[in-house]
Amino acid sequence: MFYTPESEINSRIAALQNLMNGNLMEGALILQSSDMFYYSGVFQNGALYIPSRGNPLLFIRKNYRRAAEASSLDNVIQIKNIKQIPQLLNERGYTLPGVLGLELDVITAQMYIDINKIFENSRLVDCSGLIRKQRAVKSDYEIELIKKASALTDDFFQELPGIIAPGKKECEIAGALESAARRRGHQGAVRVRGFNNEFHYGCLLSGENGGIASHFDGPLGGPGLNPSFPFGSGRRVICINEPVMVDYVGAFDGYCVDMSRVFVAGCLAEKLERAHRTAVDIQNSLAEQAKPGVTGEELYESALAMAVKAGLSDNFMGFGQQVSFVGHGVGIELNELPVLARGVKTPLEAGMVIALEPKFIFPGEGAVGIENTFVVTSPGLERLSSHPDGIGYLSY
Amino acid sequence: MFYTPESEINSRIAALQNLMNGNLMEGALILQSSDMFYYSGVFQNGALYIPSRGNPLLFIRKNYRRAAEASSLDNVIQIKNIKQIPQLLNERGYTLPGVLGLELDVITAQMYIDINKIFENSRLVDCSGLIRKQRAVKSDYEIELIKKASALTDDFFQELPGIIAPGKKECEIAGALESAARRRGHQGAVRVRGFNNEFHYGCLLSGENGGIASHFDGPLGGPGLNPSFPFGSGRRVICINEPVMVDYVGAFDGYCVDMSRVFVAGCLAEKLERAHRTAVDIQNSLAEQAKPGVTGEELYESALAMAVKAGLSDNFMGFGQQVSFVGHGVGIELNELPVLARGVKTPLEAGMVIALEPKFIFPGEGAVGIENTFVVTSPGLERLSSHPDGIGYLSY
Repeated sequence: MFYTPESEINSRIAALQNLMNGNLMEGALILQSSDMFYYSGVFQNGALYIPSRGNPLLFIRKNYRRAAEASSLDNVIQIKNIKQIPQLLNERGYTLPGVLGLELDVITAQMYIDINKIFENSRLVDCSGLIRKQRAVKSDYEIELIKKASALTDDFFQELPGIIAPGKKECEIAGALESAARRRGHQGAVRVRGFNNEFHYGCLLSGENGGIASHFDGPLGGPGLNPSFPFGSGRRVICINEPVMVDYVGAFDGYCVDMSRVFVAGCLAEKLERAHRTAVDIQNSLAEQAKPGVTGEELYESALAMAVKAGLSDNFMGFGQQVSFVGHGVGIELNELPVLARGVKTPLEAGMVIALEPKFIFPGEGAVGIENTFVVTSPGLERLSSHPDGIGYLSY
Repeated sequence: MFYTPESEINSRIAALQNLMNGNLMEGALILQSSDMFYYSGVFQNGALYIPSRGNPLLFIRKNYRRAAEASSLDNVIQIKNIKQIPQLLNERGYTLPGVLGLELDVITAQMYIDINKIFENSRLVDCSGLIRKQRAVKSDYEIELIKKASALTDDFFQELPGIIAPGKKECEIAGALESAARRRGHQGAVRVRGFNNEFHYGCLLSGENGGIASHFDGPLGGPGLNPSFPFGSGRRVICINEPVMVDYVGAFDGYCVDMSRVFVAGCLAEKLERAHRTAVDIQNSLAEQAKPGVTGEELYESALAMAVKAGLSDNFMGFGQQVSFVGHGVGIELNELPVLARGVKTPLEAGMVIALEPKFIFPGEGAVGIENTFVVTSPGLERLSSHPDGIGYLSY
């Protein structure tokens, strides 16, 4: 079991404190799993208090022993209830914050109401914006973890040609792929920030199922196995001569990479094959353009222009209810910043890790396209996956 | 693909309206996946408005077509933003609610703040209490779905003796079991209501890993694969003569059943074997006692008394940081009401579905015990699983 190094935690805390001081925030109470892991090295039941100046305090309800063992923070304090926190801060000589940051995009309404009473003299403001901005730029340590996650993801994707076969059901193939991932240490749960963002690995969709849209903000959807969880693989039996789109997340040692490939048992209609080649061309063109300073909007518009030129604008990133993006940040969560989307004017920075995923959806026929994860470096993008981008043709 | 029948949806809506009227709530805006599925038959991106009198309106941002197709509700309305809802209600002749119910335990703080502005003249109150109370008692239709889920769960548990073997890693066995579940239509994602309740199928823990506590409110924990997701299976290699505790959730067609079994390659120390028999005795005793009118507290105290009598009180339901319950409701979510716990004085009702899970934890040695899902009926509990409760001894 690895633990996040002390120097790493210290520099993350210091960087957040910088942002807090620039935003007149005197303290932040970090409650969400991903953020707590990022700033303390552990996820347990409790709260991490980060003052704008001074040392953070990690308050743990359960499991204290594991938190104390795994976190490099000096102050790990057992509590029974977060109501104790203001008094414990006072006892340790901390001034209660006039302005307290909370992760308003993820903590519950009831927690907000409760914390409003617990910190009765503090004004509660959102700190998720600062956190997400900070987390978008990865450290060298994080990039190493993401590279390892990418190598393991490449590795379990290698099993797909042996798993996909006509006559098998989507959910059966999905299960076999997930098993291949777990065997390599995939943590199973994939974190997608935000309300109702329930997720299970990704989607493996054959033929027409690749054209079924969903509630999820992505180009793919799929029927799912029932109306309660209407996303991802269904029970459709794979046929010959149709695309099997595999868009799966590798989540290893806390970090995600996002990857998509298309497989076909037999051959594919020229139209779909051509669309796939266009998607790969878009990816490669974006990978050439993207570097520090370029905006998400520029990349999206450039991708869209290539789709229009190929006569595929209707199919680009969905059909009917398209999404207006062509990629997104990945890290501890699948949907980190930046979003490479219409209207996003924040420039790329070195250290960002992004998934580029140009895809084309043909209702009734299926989905084609590509997805790979890249690190933004000063000269440009560094691609992580070495898995070939072309359609994987399977004999049967 | 099945759809929830119209009569079922209508009676659920009517029952909630009854509860709302008894609590002076004039409308409820249902946003969370499980609740939206329960009251509309679909989960998509949007909001279900249920007035205390009159017809509900299902507002869908994405995917409208799928929602309109799968829901039996008459009024499914495409929206771009939930800000439109008050005006759309006005246009349809609805009076805006003076008191509006929201799922305060699950919606985000930001949603609460936004809805406070959108429904500027409404007082926002919690409606999750009412919803959870209602959902605790299942209809015949739901019980049929849960019985099917139980049969499928029994079925994938049957594969365990062929999957568990000394020399294999926990996460490898977990992956194989999850694959067996997916092949039978397991939806993958298991819903656990509440903040930070990230979950992946359950836990499969061998030997000492069965004694590792976690942040999760259950008797088991496990190391997980990394400090970011420190729950469930790790990389430990299964040995002979130690308990392999498998506590897994079957989630099929929207409904969960919870089940635990212990397997051993070789033989087990008499102490652990005896504790396992005690757990099965406790389960059987509770199953005799439990019927409408009996409280969760009575069942917990009865279980605890048996554990004390067996000299196993320290090990009952954890070690050091024990949880004070012996079972819980299951349904669309894994952690439904009732909780069979200290202090819970609400009586069982016919139609409730509960998992009984007496377990004993021995730090450094492992976890033993049992879990099965039961339906509360007028004469008493109906057990759903037919899988034997004894330790599964494996030759190797």
